[in-house]
Amino acid sequence: MSEVADFWLEAMRRGMGQTPFLRALGGEITGFERGRGRMRLPYSPHLVGNPATGVIHGGVITGMLDQACGMAVGSMLRAPARIATLDLRIDYMRPAEPGCDLDFEAECLKIGHDIAFARGRAQQGESIVAIATGTFILSHDAPLPMAAAP
Amino acid sequence: MSEVADFWLEAMRRGMGQTPFLRALGGEITGFERGRGRMRLPYSPHLVGNPATGVIHGGVITGMLDQACGMAVGSMLRAPARIATLDLRIDYMRPAEPGCDLDFEAECLKIGHDIAFARGRAQQGESIVAIATGTFILSHDAPLPMAAAP
Amino acid sequence: MSEVADFWLEAMRRGMGQTPFLRALGGEITGFERGRGRMRLPYSPHLVGNPATGVIHGGVITGMLDQACGMAVGSMLRAPARIATLDLRIDYMRPAEPGCDLDFEAECLKIGHDIAFARGRAQQGESIVAIATGTFILSHDAPLPMAAAP
Amino acid sequence: MSEVADFWLEAMRRGMGQTPFLRALGGEITGFERGRGRMRLPYSPHLVGNPATGVIHGGVITGMLDQACGMAVGSMLRAPARIATLDLRIDYMRPAEPGCDLDFEAECLKIGHDIAFARGRAQQGESIVAIATGTFILSHDAPLPMAAAP
Repeated sequence: MSEVADFWLEAMRRGMGQTPFLRALGGEITGFERGRGRMRLPYSPHLVGNPATGVIHGGVITGMLDQACGMAVGSMLRAPARIATLDLRIDYMRPAEPGCDLDFEAECLKIGHDIAFARGRAQQGESIVAIATGTFILSHDAPLPMAAAP
Repeated sequence: MSEVADFWLEAMRRGMGQTPFLRALGGEITGFERGRGRMRLPYSPHLVGNPATGVIHGGVITGMLDQACGMAVGSMLRAPARIATLDLRIDYMRPAEPGCDLDFEAECLKIGHDIAFARGRAQQGESIVAIATGTFILSHDAPLPMAAAP
Repeated sequence: MSEVADFWLEAMRRGMGQTPFLRALGGEITGFERGRGRMRLPYSPHLVGNPATGVIHGGVITGMLDQACGMAVGSMLRAPARIATLDLRIDYMRPAEPGCDLDFEAECLKIGHDIAFARGRAQQGESIVAIATGTFILSHDAPLPMAAAP
Repeated sequence: MSEVADFWLEAMRRGMGQTPFLRALGGEITGFERGRGRMRLPYSPHLVGNPATGVIHGGVITGMLDQACGMAVGSMLRAPARIATLDLRIDYMRPAEPGCDLDFEAECLKIGHDIAFARGRAQQGESIVAIATGTFILSHDAPLPMAAAP
């Protein structure tokens, strides 16, 4: 990959890791390579959906999967573009184990000029908690999800 | 409706309004009647997905829609049961307007012994931001999403 | 509506009613107005998915819902464009009653320059058999689904 | 696998290959092993959705993916049960090439007592035309999709 592409990939990785929502959840980016995105979310009491069980709220998992899929799409871009989720389907295969961290991995299945497809999963160890499939719109003239200069 | 059902509806409403995730987002329940759930989410900087635009993260909207649909299902129960999202589809029709609150409304379309279907939408005024469709599993012997006694 | 729009709407209605797949299923268009499409599918043994019950195959219902949603989108166009389904979610709420006809109705929820959202349902009398939500891509320079001249 | 399981697998394979809908489309089962189902659909003019392009109707692809996913679920059963699609999402990644056959492959991702998850794809050679994700309900006391005795 060229230096320009490296710069862009690095800028994107940094911008995506700094969205307020991701910081509020406490998640972090653990991988960002061509066609793939990986994130980790440490277990935390403020993410719980059901106090009786300590299980993390489904919306948290959805939000992370949405972002992981968007990252996978972003990693395929050769020039800056804004990525918006058009639609997303989540299948919850089993409740997340309380007290355990979650790993998220997504891959970009296809990217065109305007539309991209991605798919991801949330895991705890080998156990798949949820899978996602989504379509994304690419806008080539919109403000980017870049972090402000330091 | 009988007093028992009233008690259950009230307990459910209270329990659902107290999930840590909902409190962390800053959302509140604005309606809970038979077959329907309504919530409101005030705009807040910690919910932003893209700092360049101030638009709220899609995962926040998904999380709220998930919960609103679950509430609509819960409002149809005649006896306590645990409600888990089996799968959910979200369509993002337009970006949420930065700085504006979001309203969520969901309805239960069908409820059986084990499975329920619900559908919801996120709005800002008359403008629909996103719609959701989901299926939910009902477990009649699992811990409930009830708040602890005060 | 202008005469030109009327002509286009009529051409579209006629074209859509003549897709080989719709003819093979035995379906017919029963309504086509701005923002809505309606179709009817008479019960027929060649549509059965499970010979033991006589229930129509889910794929038939999906195919009809796909087409009804596409019709609803097509009815909103002001100039010819090709409509392709980007993705579709179907929820099967109850098995179709064997021996009974099915009615399909769809509405276009939002149409932009390139993307449209639609939602539909399959019914037998008042009983909802399935619901669908889909996104569609509009191409303004592609061959149209028009019937050949007679 | 025991002889009983072999008998059941074989009975299921035969039953599924004989649904009237599959015969009407002209599809055939090409593989049926534990956790996986494979089918092939030869190109045929009566499956066309758009006469101007000769492209197969999306509903045909959806129907085949639905059945392939159901087969993958069925292949995991250790005792007869009826499999009904609860919901299904299809993403159409590119139009099917006119004149070319379609191959379908599905895998069962998880199977519980009442609910199963499956995922599949439609291909032409190496080119992925569509992907699907679905949830299925298992009923252990319902009529089976078995073919009548010859």
